[in-house]
Amino acid sequence: MDHEVVDIAGKLSLFSEHWSPKVVARLNDYEIKVVKVQGEFVWHAHEETDELFLVVHGTLTIQLRDGDVVLRPGQMFVVPRGVEHCPIAEGEVHAVLIEPTGVVNTGNAGGPLTAAYDALL
Amino acid sequence: MDHEVVDIAGKLSLFSEHWSPKVVARLNDYEIKVVKVQGEFVWHAHEETDELFLVVHGTLTIQLRDGDVVLRPGQMFVVPRGVEHCPIAEGEVHAVLIEPTGVVNTGNAGGPLTAAYDALL
Repeated sequence: MDHEVVDIAGKLSLFSEHWSPKVVARLNDYEIKVVKVQGEFVWHAHEETDELFLVVHGTLTIQLRDGDVVLRPGQMFVVPRGVEHCPIAEGEVHAVLIEPTGVVNTGNAGGPLTAAYDALL
Repeated sequence: MDHEVVDIAGKLSLFSEHWSPKVVARLNDYEIKVVKVQGEFVWHAHEETDELFLVVHGTLTIQLRDGDVVLRPGQMFVVPRGVEHCPIAEGEVHAVLIEPTGVVNTGNAGGPLTAAYDALL
């Protein structure tokens, strides 16, 4: 059996691109991803699932249509399914995302920031 | 809509008992829990689900029948479904657990360490 310990900072040190989540662990039919972001993403929603954000470095603002949620290291927020959101970060942010396998990062918006991420980092 | 930011350290500051996970967020049909542990738990398995451990304070050893996994802050491990495990911690450990709603902490072992945890902390 593979007893891999997943070191979050170690995984984040393996890449530098923004808005491109990497799968670092699987939990049943869910994926644990790490991501680096900076700047503004696109407004989108995931009609079929909630999405968990956990910040480990920097300050992430998740814009919602009725207000902003600000996350600092050690803080998490669950965007409920169907709720439009748009992450934005002035400085670089490192975060953990948890959501079901196969969720597309841009949700119902699509576009050039849509990432492919199937393999374990 | 409730836009609650979940501060992991803040939630951990709200209780002191060991081996009693508290639900701090929900993600679809999964629960995010925080727990404080010290000493040795009981050997058990969850036949129906994987279980994710993320350590945020201290050093946690997850004993498996074929070896130990040692987790330090910022490190996670997924115990696969059906795999017997027994957490042990010399000093106090603070951790995040993620698993489907309704999973019992002692799995197939039961006994006095079995915790009840349904309400959000």
